[in-house]
Amino acid sequence: MDIQFPINNFFLTTPSNWTAELMAHTGFDSLTLDMQHGLIDLATAVSMLQAISTTNSIPLVRARWNSPPHLMQMLDAGARGIICPMIYSAQDTRDFVSACRYPPEGIRSFGPIRAQLYGGSDYFETANDSILKFAMIETKEAYENLEEVASVEGLTGIYVGPFDLSVSLGLKKKADFGSPELMNILKRVLEVATATGLKTGVYTIHPSDAQEMKAMGFDLVSCGDETSILKNGAANLLKALSE
Amino acid sequence: MDIQFPINNFFLTTPSNWTAELMAHTGFDSLTLDMQHGLIDLATAVSMLQAISTTNSIPLVRARWNSPPHLMQMLDAGARGIICPMIYSAQDTRDFVSACRYPPEGIRSFGPIRAQLYGGSDYFETANDSILKFAMIETKEAYENLEEVASVEGLTGIYVGPFDLSVSLGLKKKADFGSPELMNILKRVLEVATATGLKTGVYTIHPSDAQEMKAMGFDLVSCGDETSILKNGAANLLKALSE
Amino acid sequence: MDIQFPINNFFLTTPSNWTAELMAHTGFDSLTLDMQHGLIDLATAVSMLQAISTTNSIPLVRARWNSPPHLMQMLDAGARGIICPMIYSAQDTRDFVSACRYPPEGIRSFGPIRAQLYGGSDYFETANDSILKFAMIETKEAYENLEEVASVEGLTGIYVGPFDLSVSLGLKKKADFGSPELMNILKRVLEVATATGLKTGVYTIHPSDAQEMKAMGFDLVSCGDETSILKNGAANLLKALSE
Amino acid sequence: MDIQFPINNFFLTTPSNWTAELMAHTGFDSLTLDMQHGLIDLATAVSMLQAISTTNSIPLVRARWNSPPHLMQMLDAGARGIICPMIYSAQDTRDFVSACRYPPEGIRSFGPIRAQLYGGSDYFETANDSILKFAMIETKEAYENLEEVASVEGLTGIYVGPFDLSVSLGLKKKADFGSPELMNILKRVLEVATATGLKTGVYTIHPSDAQEMKAMGFDLVSCGDETSILKNGAANLLKALSE
Amino acid sequence: MDIQFPINNFFLTTPSNWTAELMAHTGFDSLTLDMQHGLIDLATAVSMLQAISTTNSIPLVRARWNSPPHLMQMLDAGARGIICPMIYSAQDTRDFVSACRYPPEGIRSFGPIRAQLYGGSDYFETANDSILKFAMIETKEAYENLEEVASVEGLTGIYVGPFDLSVSLGLKKKADFGSPELMNILKRVLEVATATGLKTGVYTIHPSDAQEMKAMGFDLVSCGDETSILKNGAANLLKALSE
Amino acid sequence: MDIQFPINNFFLTTPSNWTAELMAHTGFDSLTLDMQHGLIDLATAVSMLQAISTTNSIPLVRARWNSPPHLMQMLDAGARGIICPMIYSAQDTRDFVSACRYPPEGIRSFGPIRAQLYGGSDYFETANDSILKFAMIETKEAYENLEEVASVEGLTGIYVGPFDLSVSLGLKKKADFGSPELMNILKRVLEVATATGLKTGVYTIHPSDAQEMKAMGFDLVSCGDETSILKNGAANLLKALSE
Repeated sequence: MDIQFPINNFFLTTPSNWTAELMAHTGFDSLTLDMQHGLIDLATAVSMLQAISTTNSIPLVRARWNSPPHLMQMLDAGARGIICPMIYSAQDTRDFVSACRYPPEGIRSFGPIRAQLYGGSDYFETANDSILKFAMIETKEAYENLEEVASVEGLTGIYVGPFDLSVSLGLKKKADFGSPELMNILKRVLEVATATGLKTGVYTIHPSDAQEMKAMGFDLVSCGDETSILKNGAANLLKALSE
Repeated sequence: MDIQFPINNFFLTTPSNWTAELMAHTGFDSLTLDMQHGLIDLATAVSMLQAISTTNSIPLVRARWNSPPHLMQMLDAGARGIICPMIYSAQDTRDFVSACRYPPEGIRSFGPIRAQLYGGSDYFETANDSILKFAMIETKEAYENLEEVASVEGLTGIYVGPFDLSVSLGLKKKADFGSPELMNILKRVLEVATATGLKTGVYTIHPSDAQEMKAMGFDLVSCGDETSILKNGAANLLKALSE
Repeated sequence: MDIQFPINNFFLTTPSNWTAELMAHTGFDSLTLDMQHGLIDLATAVSMLQAISTTNSIPLVRARWNSPPHLMQMLDAGARGIICPMIYSAQDTRDFVSACRYPPEGIRSFGPIRAQLYGGSDYFETANDSILKFAMIETKEAYENLEEVASVEGLTGIYVGPFDLSVSLGLKKKADFGSPELMNILKRVLEVATATGLKTGVYTIHPSDAQEMKAMGFDLVSCGDETSILKNGAANLLKALSE
Repeated sequence: MDIQFPINNFFLTTPSNWTAELMAHTGFDSLTLDMQHGLIDLATAVSMLQAISTTNSIPLVRARWNSPPHLMQMLDAGARGIICPMIYSAQDTRDFVSACRYPPEGIRSFGPIRAQLYGGSDYFETANDSILKFAMIETKEAYENLEEVASVEGLTGIYVGPFDLSVSLGLKKKADFGSPELMNILKRVLEVATATGLKTGVYTIHPSDAQEMKAMGFDLVSCGDETSILKNGAANLLKALSE
Repeated sequence: MDIQFPINNFFLTTPSNWTAELMAHTGFDSLTLDMQHGLIDLATAVSMLQAISTTNSIPLVRARWNSPPHLMQMLDAGARGIICPMIYSAQDTRDFVSACRYPPEGIRSFGPIRAQLYGGSDYFETANDSILKFAMIETKEAYENLEEVASVEGLTGIYVGPFDLSVSLGLKKKADFGSPELMNILKRVLEVATATGLKTGVYTIHPSDAQEMKAMGFDLVSCGDETSILKNGAANLLKALSE
Repeated sequence: MDIQFPINNFFLTTPSNWTAELMAHTGFDSLTLDMQHGLIDLATAVSMLQAISTTNSIPLVRARWNSPPHLMQMLDAGARGIICPMIYSAQDTRDFVSACRYPPEGIRSFGPIRAQLYGGSDYFETANDSILKFAMIETKEAYENLEEVASVEGLTGIYVGPFDLSVSLGLKKKADFGSPELMNILKRVLEVATATGLKTGVYTIHPSDAQEMKAMGFDLVSCGDETSILKNGAANLLKALSE
């Protein structure tokens, strides 16, 4: 699987194989199961990964935590890449990358039960390289350690979580893409990533922010989730019905 | 529970207690589990009815079929009303209404396991009257038998399914609210219902159609489901991202 | 499996393999999945039957309806017997028994996927006889047709549903075992069953009623379900805590 | 979807999206969810259909029963074809075919929620023709009415269920493909199907029987299910371990 | 949500949205999902929290472990408070409290998907304070470090787990509320909590113990779970039936 | 439960209570839920343990990770023994064993909700000893620390994971039982175990390897899983059908 960046990404926070299949058929380049905030259990995660695999959309996982058994389980389940939250340091990043790679590069345990259906018989040989490994920059510590994080061998890219990062840095508003503070942060991330040859990703809510991020050069731009589409859609509908 | 008509209704076709709870919090007067086309199994239906009951939204069920065990099960599970598809005749309507009522009025078996949590200790005495019983008019036969259907004792209302009805009547387009044919049908339904003291309901997809139906006097107007909101929302988002 | 009557029976109305296993370990001779009023879906029914089979308790099913595909499915799933509701006539009884027996005696389709684990390799030869087939007497019509129902070849026994029967016959109170009306009904059922060599069963809520029914000679006496135990237990606990 | 016959078919009796996906990747031309004897509930059926759709294997359903709401639900869920059990007569066959077709040809209700993802925007126009509709010949009555069954307009093919048919006809052994009785039956089915332009299908357990059926000219040959593979595989393994 | 202490609490150990809803309707002030010993998975936990939210009972969670991703997930799922097991030290307590609070007070990640339905649009601003955070005293180490544990900023209260604490301290009997040893422990907990302005909680099995704990001044008194009610109820019933 | 070694073991990697029950009835002495690579969630794990307990087969769990809450949960759920992966050192082994034992020997928390159904009323007194505790030797570090690992008090046995161990040690082929390198490793494991009075276990794929391991003296020999049986069975079937 040779991935052509940039790609449009969408977050799935509804634990449902039906909504996953529905969204996979709309045309997003990749879909990300949000195992951190999405309340998605293991059984449903597997069925959602199957639902995505009925199309060519690339199945990613935003991990619940930087925890080896969880990361390995999501990879065994067939995730093509991981967006890992709660990275604070280069050591966290090395632990994350190590859990995603078989020895001697890492400590991943062998048993790619579902991954092998898609990765093929040479999965053991190719998975260490082909799996996307994005470290989330969403804490003050990670942002301060950005260069060290970015220099970790084996990492694919840096993914900015603007909500938690705004909170952690004490910015006035959460994820305010119009503010110079956040914009400067995003520029620095792009610069560091460019310097180290890494891919870049960012989470947005508003399509206009997503467009701007694509224009700025981010490779993997996520824009919202089903929950936000449903909330907005219902609000618009109710407003129309009350007119 | 004293229901004040007219009410805004929304169909749930996603088998998910999460999306059900989310939609219940948006403010629809009532939500209808679509057991006919929504691929919702019994276990999920129960959890969806619970999710709706975390709010004041009225939980209804569009039945899978005019089948007594199914109708009784949905009522035992706590549905406050049934919209029953595939009604062809007055006899079908009588069978439907009978399955929703305890003897001597009907043949419903006693055991309101979850319904009693909401209906209270006098559920047996009050349920026959309080349960909403809407017969769907969606076949040529039912439309031809409209007066007979409407005259069935115990029926609460008539609910028009414009898609199947258009197909069954051989109309040129499905559910074309702008066409005189469909408009005449809707007017006749309203007239017959008014004459017999019945409530009226109708399914729409577009908010403008829903507005028009409310203006015409329909008491229970449904407008779309989560599937359509998600499809449209994703299409709009992808269009914005490609600009 | 040679069943020794009389047996203590208990109804399971909670769709849960955990509560099923818990109750199976308490010592009831048999447990009955209530597929009619218990909101139990197929997947959970199978796991509950497994849970019961971790003990020697006999797994029975109170059917959702007198419907051949449902009856056959419960038998394929491993039910050792069926208590069939909504029997009105001898013909209903013949249909019920026929669905529980392979040709030439009946119309059951062959494919006892889980039943064969317990029934063994000669299941096809023995199942027609060994499966318990109880027809519920819970409608006025069935009670009036009692002799005809009882004379149906292949039937194992008659099971009285006193709640629905009280409602259907218009008795003053539901399931009032202290009333002469209900007592006369129960006596007649015992007489007819004795005359035709059938077993007898009855549903009760109160242990004292169950004791009386055992004393009267009923072979399969059910007493309550988890829902009633939980409700009463919680009420007692809350009362104690408020003192 | 243009299907090229003959095709190798396999029955799925395990309610599991994992085993369904695993089998879909092994290379069978089509997989059939056994909703009759397989203990597969609706929610799992949907996830199994998704699992199959991660490959090019054609998803079929052996229906639970010749019941319109069930047939319509399986089609809405995305089954590309139905193998319908318990057909006794031409009228049964007409009912089966009618439930699989939209008006004016049939009575199917419109709402192809998941089917439309695969069938496309012209699903309504094409589904009546493209859906495979196989009537099972597995009762004495159906076999006697074979010509009438085969002549029903809209039917795709005849599918022989040799186990139930052997039982129903009182043959000495069940599904004994080496016996002249069964072989004559199979030949007659092929002749009648050829005369009426119908496809033919048959269920087998042993690969050698399947080979023979393909050689005889059957278009859709099923051979076993996961349950039989697992049983045989475990028995062989345990035998090897005890040597 | 302004909580008035003291409150009657009940533990849910059965993974079932039905039993959760049933118990919520009986009148307990709060219900606690036992994620540690209750075998409750994430999907069922969410549906149980929904079931509780159909009433005014306060949904709490006894955490599986003092692990940040688990604690954050339960809060995102809508728990109004956490009872955290396996606390050994003040540092453990600080970690627990930190995982329950957004920066700058803690390290909780932002994404309160279900919590926001109940917490409202200002959830981010209010959640740090409003979430109940009870540290369990159930190990020898925690009991020895009681003052340090109690002095951790942000902690709501101390909750005694008498079973594990008895085992850890090597008491003669487990949770023997009549023994001077346990009574002295409970008194010291109350004293330390009073001195530091903390709330107090305790787990009991017998109503008489619960009454005594309420009388002593405990604010959150738990008494048993569904498992114990079902076991006792079944034992009583079987005893009555055998008399 | 007194376990007689040697025993034939089989791994369950399919999250399904049906396949678990099916395999339990085939005759394996013990079955191991693979919680590490098998994609089995908690709810399904419980139902699989129930399925196994319908027979006398011993239910074991290969843990997801050497993590106390996970180990305790699997034991509460009724596992009779744990095979623990990712052991690197004696300290890891002590942590593993400690999580499996109640104080004062370990740190296990008391609440054996399902385990007590099988362990009986004296479960607390007997569980520390009766639970099987196998440490996996599957990393270079663990192999180098073999004597120290084996000397940990309370450990039941050593279990070799030849795939990960081959990878970790950099052997030319994975799990090549014919190679002198792996054979020497296995011999050393047997020697160390014999010297310390430990049991020994090993995972194999091919029956011939399993036979050899039994002959060499391994006490708990695992051979394959359902996934491998299904893959091989389907491949053989498709090959036969194409001939």
